[in-house]
Amino acid sequence: MDKRVLMTGFDPFGGETVNPAWEAVHRLDGRALQGGWTIVSQQVPTVFDRSIAVLREAMGRVRPQVVICVGQAGGRAQITPERVAINVNDARIPDNAGQQPIDTPVVPGGPAAYFTKLPIKRIVAALREAGIPAAVSNTAGTYVCNHIFYGLMHLIATEHPQVQGGFVHIPYLPEQVAGKTEPSMALDLIVRGLELVAAVAAAASDAGGEADLAVTAGQEC
Amino acid sequence: MDKRVLMTGFDPFGGETVNPAWEAVHRLDGRALQGGWTIVSQQVPTVFDRSIAVLREAMGRVRPQVVICVGQAGGRAQITPERVAINVNDARIPDNAGQQPIDTPVVPGGPAAYFTKLPIKRIVAALREAGIPAAVSNTAGTYVCNHIFYGLMHLIATEHPQVQGGFVHIPYLPEQVAGKTEPSMALDLIVRGLELVAAVAAAASDAGGEADLAVTAGQEC
Amino acid sequence: MDKRVLMTGFDPFGGETVNPAWEAVHRLDGRALQGGWTIVSQQVPTVFDRSIAVLREAMGRVRPQVVICVGQAGGRAQITPERVAINVNDARIPDNAGQQPIDTPVVPGGPAAYFTKLPIKRIVAALREAGIPAAVSNTAGTYVCNHIFYGLMHLIATEHPQVQGGFVHIPYLPEQVAGKTEPSMALDLIVRGLELVAAVAAAASDAGGEADLAVTAGQEC
Amino acid sequence: MDKRVLMTGFDPFGGETVNPAWEAVHRLDGRALQGGWTIVSQQVPTVFDRSIAVLREAMGRVRPQVVICVGQAGGRAQITPERVAINVNDARIPDNAGQQPIDTPVVPGGPAAYFTKLPIKRIVAALREAGIPAAVSNTAGTYVCNHIFYGLMHLIATEHPQVQGGFVHIPYLPEQVAGKTEPSMALDLIVRGLELVAAVAAAASDAGGEADLAVTAGQEC
Repeated sequence: MDKRVLMTGFDPFGGETVNPAWEAVHRLDGRALQGGWTIVSQQVPTVFDRSIAVLREAMGRVRPQVVICVGQAGGRAQITPERVAINVNDARIPDNAGQQPIDTPVVPGGPAAYFTKLPIKRIVAALREAGIPAAVSNTAGTYVCNHIFYGLMHLIATEHPQVQGGFVHIPYLPEQVAGKTEPSMALDLIVRGLELVAAVAAAASDAGGEADLAVTAGQEC
Repeated sequence: MDKRVLMTGFDPFGGETVNPAWEAVHRLDGRALQGGWTIVSQQVPTVFDRSIAVLREAMGRVRPQVVICVGQAGGRAQITPERVAINVNDARIPDNAGQQPIDTPVVPGGPAAYFTKLPIKRIVAALREAGIPAAVSNTAGTYVCNHIFYGLMHLIATEHPQVQGGFVHIPYLPEQVAGKTEPSMALDLIVRGLELVAAVAAAASDAGGEADLAVTAGQEC
Repeated sequence: MDKRVLMTGFDPFGGETVNPAWEAVHRLDGRALQGGWTIVSQQVPTVFDRSIAVLREAMGRVRPQVVICVGQAGGRAQITPERVAINVNDARIPDNAGQQPIDTPVVPGGPAAYFTKLPIKRIVAALREAGIPAAVSNTAGTYVCNHIFYGLMHLIATEHPQVQGGFVHIPYLPEQVAGKTEPSMALDLIVRGLELVAAVAAAASDAGGEADLAVTAGQEC
Repeated sequence: MDKRVLMTGFDPFGGETVNPAWEAVHRLDGRALQGGWTIVSQQVPTVFDRSIAVLREAMGRVRPQVVICVGQAGGRAQITPERVAINVNDARIPDNAGQQPIDTPVVPGGPAAYFTKLPIKRIVAALREAGIPAAVSNTAGTYVCNHIFYGLMHLIATEHPQVQGGFVHIPYLPEQVAGKTEPSMALDLIVRGLELVAAVAAAASDAGGEADLAVTAGQEC
């Protein structure tokens, strides 16, 4: 068989020289998963709109059954699959093309939000089972991460209804915070974690979109 | 003139004996604001569905032009107006009626999310100007706070289209965390802050729904 | 009778325009406590060595039975009586006279550390009982706060053996962090807390240096 | 030549099934370092007094020129060499023999504190240079970590004056916090970090106790 997980990672931004997302994602390019799946990696620019255009082109070219976009979440200690993408851009800092949109929609006229189609609770359970710190997140922020996540879900809704897709945030690499107090995660562990994310999402796709686990990932705020 | 801000606060939950939301909100009951406005306070139960029913009844009775629901955000150090309500219930702990829904919609068939109609950036600017710690939040969680917030926005969309409404999270009171390490905020400061929130929202309503400030409140994640 | 608690507070430093320590301490000047005690407040400069010289002069003039030095602990959410002062200056930022000592002793030839003579566990218990967030701290840092604390304990050891003395760190005021995420504490609550600290220390002095409570305030790290 | 770094790690405590200290330290047993040095690893029990007795026996047997005790610092994101050991035991939880001392001295009649003899700023600089998160810490807590650190420095002061010694705290392993929010560090990175700590300490010993770097590691509190 011939099934593909398309995985994207951003280039560096915000003064960083590496982005753990692309560092991890490109190491998974070509990786074979159980059940006849292969990971295809794609770099995307940390740029509003252009990132979605690159994603759209890649989806058309690769024809994946599963798409997982990956981004850096500075300050988080865990791998965090995101629950929901919201239709807003609100940039604290400029993107890599100098754009800094404030309270603009990702897609004018699009719905206020999209929920992921990934089995995020199954994914978190599998990561923890493997000893990898993980949790569901209820906000992907309002920067390019949320932007491509919303763009992905809108592409799925309007052009690729059969695709399972979502977004996963990952921590800083240790070398990014060697002199700071923020938490980090070793690259090897992130790579292992993202491979597991892809494998669980692929298996769920094979199972015809089985229901996610009925376990709480709730937060009071 | 005769204009009303309806303000709601929850009863205690999660083992707490007070809820700072109701402690603060009930002190504002009857408070007159500039421009002919009065605050009307309403307690709501920390119970899925019932909280929205109580809110709906109060909106029909009070006929407010502005509605501000208030809830406790244990662990936050600031007053945080919420940007977006999402159509999901995912309870980490049971509500006060013993219900613990997992991944159910607040309103079956409702949109995935609603954005607040409060001028949240204007509110945050006014709070900071007054020396009160404040920030926009991009997640109201998945418990009863997000639930009533979504319910409010759905009531506005379907029954009260002229109403400006939203949700504000507040910190613990000092006595709730006397032996813990979480941040807190004195009741007097919360009351002053919420009065200011109501005043800014009322003024924006008077101004016919003027645009919010074009300043960033963005977060990368 | 005529007994005095000398309480000191620093002037602002590090770019701040207020220092909560002096804001709170000067409000307690002249405050009468049970048992014939009066609080005498003294400002001290945020300057290495000079702060201790001012403290020494004040102790000679006021002739207190109890001395409590107070300083700002940016980032802490609680009132934290300090357990131990160490014989080192290591300044991350210059003091208000432009000095930035690195790894110099507070008192050349002095002992490596002094333990406080205040009943810090009794104090924490009283603060919590009053609903004020509090905890014992095991590090006063390496800046002017630890410096004056060590200086105080050395003055007690060498010149005023009958004095009970120690150091208390307090949080930021809300207006100092209106636009930041750090925790804060309202000035009224800090003032109430410090008055309680003075009262408990005064009572312990009256009791002839009774033993502190045998309750844990331990930390693994 | 024949020079030895003795490195100790605790067994698990507090409900954990592994202790990252021993996990990392035992992997370094026999490791050769530049300049004719070898690491000798020794497990110590998480027990007051007994841990120091085991350390004392090992120092007599191994005859090291450098001793580095290692312990877990749950909640820290960095490798943190400790600056100072204090003469107090104050246990929040019982040790592995059920003892829970409160405000007892480590060594009755011993000095209030000892400063480390390791070049902690040189060590932190080397770790950061290697991309490993690191910082000087000013408190080793009041549990068995501080206890063995104080015991080590007292043994050096009284029996082994030629030895350079100190204590290093390390983060949780990822699998310890797979379902929690605390930061962690991969075992490989900890092992690499501790080897570097040993190498820098060994080189400083070879250099005859050269002065530490004159860079700040100061904290206001």
